[in-house]
Amino acid sequence: MKSKVKFTAFVVASIDGKIAKDSKSGAPWASKEDWLFFQQSLKKFDAVVVGTSTFKVAQKNLNKRNTVVFTSRVGKFKTVGSVTFFNPSRANVADFLKHNNYKKVAILGGPKVYSYFLEKGMLDELYVTIEPLIFTEGVNMFTGDKFTKYKLKLESVKKLNTQGTLLLKYNAN
Amino acid sequence: MKSKVKFTAFVVASIDGKIAKDSKSGAPWASKEDWLFFQQSLKKFDAVVVGTSTFKVAQKNLNKRNTVVFTSRVGKFKTVGSVTFFNPSRANVADFLKHNNYKKVAILGGPKVYSYFLEKGMLDELYVTIEPLIFTEGVNMFTGDKFTKYKLKLESVKKLNTQGTLLLKYNAN
Repeated sequence: MKSKVKFTAFVVASIDGKIAKDSKSGAPWASKEDWLFFQQSLKKFDAVVVGTSTFKVAQKNLNKRNTVVFTSRVGKFKTVGSVTFFNPSRANVADFLKHNNYKKVAILGGPKVYSYFLEKGMLDELYVTIEPLIFTEGVNMFTGDKFTKYKLKLESVKKLNTQGTLLLKYNAN
Repeated sequence: MKSKVKFTAFVVASIDGKIAKDSKSGAPWASKEDWLFFQQSLKKFDAVVVGTSTFKVAQKNLNKRNTVVFTSRVGKFKTVGSVTFFNPSRANVADFLKHNNYKKVAILGGPKVYSYFLEKGMLDELYVTIEPLIFTEGVNMFTGDKFTKYKLKLESVKKLNTQGTLLLKYNAN
């Protein structure tokens, strides 16, 4: 029997929980310390899951990885090189990842993809980097139909630079 | 000459930056450790500023304090006991507070009131308590017309309990 896949989400956000200006933008405002942490972390993962907007923003980097792109525009799934376009309403993503022997999977957003794993109770860990910024407007970290209270547990806090970028690690089980 | 008023905002939020279910609700999900910190802190302040929704939610407690309620429903301002209903588009709130010899003023929300002081560059300090919760939907911490990058500096981090409630203090100048 194959073991359970471990899902870890990575989020970089402002103090007010915004992750981007709009769905077409990345996080050029993220600190270089967060970028280094993120790149180093990804080396330990077998695959990443993203939505189509995140894929478009970061396609150059994601094409080199084992990437699963959530989309409703394929039947079950369609693989092109190391990238698989995957329809989560028609196929089981945990089964697909297990079948490919991926044990550690990073969830890289956007909000719909983060929320998919959160709502299904599949999220094991959440890394949130809080940059010392306030945006007031922008893309929310998660997207939900209604106010729901998901309880997590803080595992660690690390200050990444003098301006005060904070790296928080939560257990989401 | 009277000295400058110091403005300190207090926010309690989820990991994803939500401060309430809706404009009629408070933060019953906030930890008792945050509540204690908040009550202890308020003792050091001469007055508080809130919006009408926050005033309605917390009226019983706010009636006992020197409270300024932002509203568009008065001319300049109208005082009832220790509570002043104040129209910030018709009168200058900093002048009003100075005139009353209030030196330390706490900004208690909601989002419009937080944003008013942030946008005007009047905010000196920001305390953000992050409860280890995700809500996905709810009232945002701030409200803005467009994505803007306000830069702050983290001054301190304190873990308030074992579940991982975090108290962050930012310098907003």
